[in-house]
Amino acid sequence: MKHNFSAGPAILPQQVIKEASEAVIDFYGTGLSVLEVSHRSKEFVSVLEEANQLIKDLLEINDDYEVLFLTGGASSQFFMTAMNILKEDETAGYINTGTWSTKAIKEAKLYGHINEVGSSKDENFNHIPKGLTIPDTLRYVHYTSNNTIFGTQFHQMPETSNRLVADMSSEIFSRPVDIAAHDIIYAGAQKNLGPAGVTIVIVKKDILGKVNRVIPTMLNYETHIKGKSSFNTPPVYPIFCSMLTLRWIKENGGVRNMQKRNIAKADLLYNEIDRNSCFEGTAKKEDRSLMNVCFVANDESKSSIFMDMCTEAGCSGLKGHRSVGGFRASIYNAMPISSVQVLVDLMKEFEKKHG
Amino acid sequence: MKHNFSAGPAILPQQVIKEASEAVIDFYGTGLSVLEVSHRSKEFVSVLEEANQLIKDLLEINDDYEVLFLTGGASSQFFMTAMNILKEDETAGYINTGTWSTKAIKEAKLYGHINEVGSSKDENFNHIPKGLTIPDTLRYVHYTSNNTIFGTQFHQMPETSNRLVADMSSEIFSRPVDIAAHDIIYAGAQKNLGPAGVTIVIVKKDILGKVNRVIPTMLNYETHIKGKSSFNTPPVYPIFCSMLTLRWIKENGGVRNMQKRNIAKADLLYNEIDRNSCFEGTAKKEDRSLMNVCFVANDESKSSIFMDMCTEAGCSGLKGHRSVGGFRASIYNAMPISSVQVLVDLMKEFEKKHG
Repeated sequence: MKHNFSAGPAILPQQVIKEASEAVIDFYGTGLSVLEVSHRSKEFVSVLEEANQLIKDLLEINDDYEVLFLTGGASSQFFMTAMNILKEDETAGYINTGTWSTKAIKEAKLYGHINEVGSSKDENFNHIPKGLTIPDTLRYVHYTSNNTIFGTQFHQMPETSNRLVADMSSEIFSRPVDIAAHDIIYAGAQKNLGPAGVTIVIVKKDILGKVNRVIPTMLNYETHIKGKSSFNTPPVYPIFCSMLTLRWIKENGGVRNMQKRNIAKADLLYNEIDRNSCFEGTAKKEDRSLMNVCFVANDESKSSIFMDMCTEAGCSGLKGHRSVGGFRASIYNAMPISSVQVLVDLMKEFEKKHG
Repeated sequence: MKHNFSAGPAILPQQVIKEASEAVIDFYGTGLSVLEVSHRSKEFVSVLEEANQLIKDLLEINDDYEVLFLTGGASSQFFMTAMNILKEDETAGYINTGTWSTKAIKEAKLYGHINEVGSSKDENFNHIPKGLTIPDTLRYVHYTSNNTIFGTQFHQMPETSNRLVADMSSEIFSRPVDIAAHDIIYAGAQKNLGPAGVTIVIVKKDILGKVNRVIPTMLNYETHIKGKSSFNTPPVYPIFCSMLTLRWIKENGGVRNMQKRNIAKADLLYNEIDRNSCFEGTAKKEDRSLMNVCFVANDESKSSIFMDMCTEAGCSGLKGHRSVGGFRASIYNAMPISSVQVLVDLMKEFEKKHG
């Protein structure tokens, strides 16, 4: 039995993996592999439509918005968001909460003025900046709702009268979202949704077509709205797997129930981190992520002993990012609480032996 | 038994499909699905390296070039090629041989001067323009080496002293290529290589870094060279499947043997089209594609009868593109000659009954 704590690509529900494997042999009884069917076939068009509808239903998205299935990852959205909606003489606000925000800021600067309205860089991004003074005149305010590397999360949306743009890559579908406050939400699929290779963009339609710059056809959100995410050949299999995961989320009580489960899992693990004399959390308590739990061993010299115990017990993907060190347990939607319990038991065992 | 004549996404070798399905359950004995492993894991890094090396070996690519695994399809390469290497005051030549060339021209115009040095548009792209007068002073000449929609193919490279840039999406790995004549070769994977979701770019390193324009990080080839196609999370599964297909090509005699097989398959089918009184090819004979065989029924009113016979016999994906009509049999590398024989037999049977 493996327990996959990888930060991304990341654990998927066992049921999804089983169905995803079967469809590689026979897709919907067509006798063909899902890998070799036309993206214009009625079978795949129905997959795309079902995925689209499931996202709209699960996040309660109204018709002011379109849901797009693109490629290029969140890394491409760092520039595409600004390229599509920020005019050269306009200013956008960015809250800098880590590596990904920093990259988003760098790319957005190519297209307009950027006001870094908040940052936790001085404390190695161990918290979410709050009590910010944000001007009311910004085109939008961008935030990274969950910070995979530093294990912090916005538990409330940024306080601002401006429209919001959010990178939700590592938390989308883990809890309800106030869609109406956002102009754009984007997310790489490879954390809570599917395999790497597809990027979800939720975009408010009436904000588009207002910038004057040259936008290549493939980088214009309007192209993909008009083409229903099939202007060119979309990433068929990553979309198919994402659809399977969306079905699984719906069958398991939707995002509200995901949130309940995620809180229970995170509580279990953070409580042990706080109780256990051998470990310490790295993020400020009030900003701790429900998705990525970052912690270090108090005696760093014994880190590798704990890591070996974890590997032995089938727990993988626990190495912390180099910018934080220690351990990172990513406990996305698909992670069962029983796997979190295995990790907690290992921490207890470690304390008994080495505490 | 199914015979998949789809133009793309398209048929893959049965062995690849089997291994691709198994890896969704257990990837290289890790106990994890290939869909949920980190792109930084040693197992996936070895997949990426093997895929890269196989491409270099199969196409005899030397170290002046890099092989990249990107996303966004050939449609994104239409602008990325020009964006990365065409200066604003430079001119590139484009040979217009169909829908995809036309789109490539449109995007390249955003970045420099475009000289349409040849076109077969006047005859609905039924041939490859030849005997062109191409100035020697172009930054590069772009051509679409195989035209999926119109069933034409460059059997020789364009005659020019200029450097070449080629869209080889629907023929890559079907025959040897003179790499040294090209600055860039690009190809969506979903014809001869793997499932949709990954785009191969072969780029000459010393041509980069010479344009002055702003290029977002993700659109700069240099980013992906430096990042070894993992600057951000690459499309893990499409790359994995492509690697399996590359192995299969190597095990089956490489691109020289693929070419032999492809010629045999195409000869079988074109000979029947020419012999059979009920059908006619749409492309000029000398420019016929070895990959996409386009033909029409002489009596159009009986087209649907033939299509029904094909469907009955398990032949799918034969409907011609709306801009040509009739039938299109895509007979990529993975298509066995036995499946082509099934189609030929159906044509003979049709002639007996309805000729």
